[in-house]
Amino acid sequence: MSEYPSILLEQAVNQMASLPGVGRRTALRLVLHLLRQKEQDVEAFSGSFLRLKKEVVYCRECHNISDSELCPICASTRRDHSTICVVENVQDVMSIENTGQYNGVYHVLGGIISPMEGVGPKDIEIDSLIDRISRGDISEIILALPTTMEGDTTNFYIYRRLQNAGAEIKISQIARGVAVGNQLEYTDEITLGRSIINRTEFKG
Amino acid sequence: MSEYPSILLEQAVNQMASLPGVGRRTALRLVLHLLRQKEQDVEAFSGSFLRLKKEVVYCRECHNISDSELCPICASTRRDHSTICVVENVQDVMSIENTGQYNGVYHVLGGIISPMEGVGPKDIEIDSLIDRISRGDISEIILALPTTMEGDTTNFYIYRRLQNAGAEIKISQIARGVAVGNQLEYTDEITLGRSIINRTEFKG
Repeated sequence: MSEYPSILLEQAVNQMASLPGVGRRTALRLVLHLLRQKEQDVEAFSGSFLRLKKEVVYCRECHNISDSELCPICASTRRDHSTICVVENVQDVMSIENTGQYNGVYHVLGGIISPMEGVGPKDIEIDSLIDRISRGDISEIILALPTTMEGDTTNFYIYRRLQNAGAEIKISQIARGVAVGNQLEYTDEITLGRSIINRTEFKG
Repeated sequence: MSEYPSILLEQAVNQMASLPGVGRRTALRLVLHLLRQKEQDVEAFSGSFLRLKKEVVYCRECHNISDSELCPICASTRRDHSTICVVENVQDVMSIENTGQYNGVYHVLGGIISPMEGVGPKDIEIDSLIDRISRGDISEIILALPTTMEGDTTNFYIYRRLQNAGAEIKISQIARGVAVGNQLEYTDEITLGRSIINRTEFKG
């Protein structure tokens, strides 16, 4: 006999436990929580994911998730369209937007180059980035990819592609250094070393 | 402008974050994971909860979640139907079944008496328990409710109801004591005190 008193319950728990980081015990708790809700609330819950999957659009310019052909950021006339910040995914756009420090536009790669996971340049939105830059009027590319080996590889690949394309634009990357509020003694050696090499002028 | 680049995304995140213990950041991660799955997989995910909500049945005897009018445990001829273990919810049935130490049947209250949360005796399956016992052939009731004030209150209420009904059956409760593998010095005083009062004969 199954561990579960109901096959329907077991199937729902299996589905919930398919989410990353959700174990079977947590999945059971979440499913039983849903079961205590009204039917229309469960309909709204279930429907929201299916509707997103079926109706989602990716912005034709930056490839961010969008409700229309052009996302709100790319459609805005108040943003600086000559600066493109290259990020890995949707969350990164939201994180940078939350800082309130950036007024340019984005380019969402939808991944980074990772030979280990079989992700090559053709699997992510690099061609469309080069194409977008070659269409002109871009003055700066800010590479804001993860500070990992995969991120570095992707940064370097994009840099080379832009050189080959003969694009004469400024290419920068986000600063790497000691996080604000951190103690030096708890900062890893590579980060601390870089923060000394890439020191900036002190403006007292 | 909304924090999210898409209203559909925001709605899906809101729904995911409505689950207990799921924060907005985790919800976003889970929703984007779903978005990377095939449409038929998202359909299976969403459909499983709605199907459970619409088609679930509660066993007419023990009120456990079931696929049919009588749950597999109540329908089994290999279980001892004269012993009823009273539990708060579905998870408790599964936990006790997992021990492999119990061969009787269950009664799922669907909650415990909690004046703080406005849950009274009429809100849970107590009447049906008394009715089930009065129909006869029950020799023992095992109270396996949480060892909290609410659990104690519910235990006492059921005990009194059975006395009033003139039922002459054995009423027991699960043992409370030092958990197996625990150090005495880290066991709370009430539990340790009870474990001395309710000491059991040592069979060497």
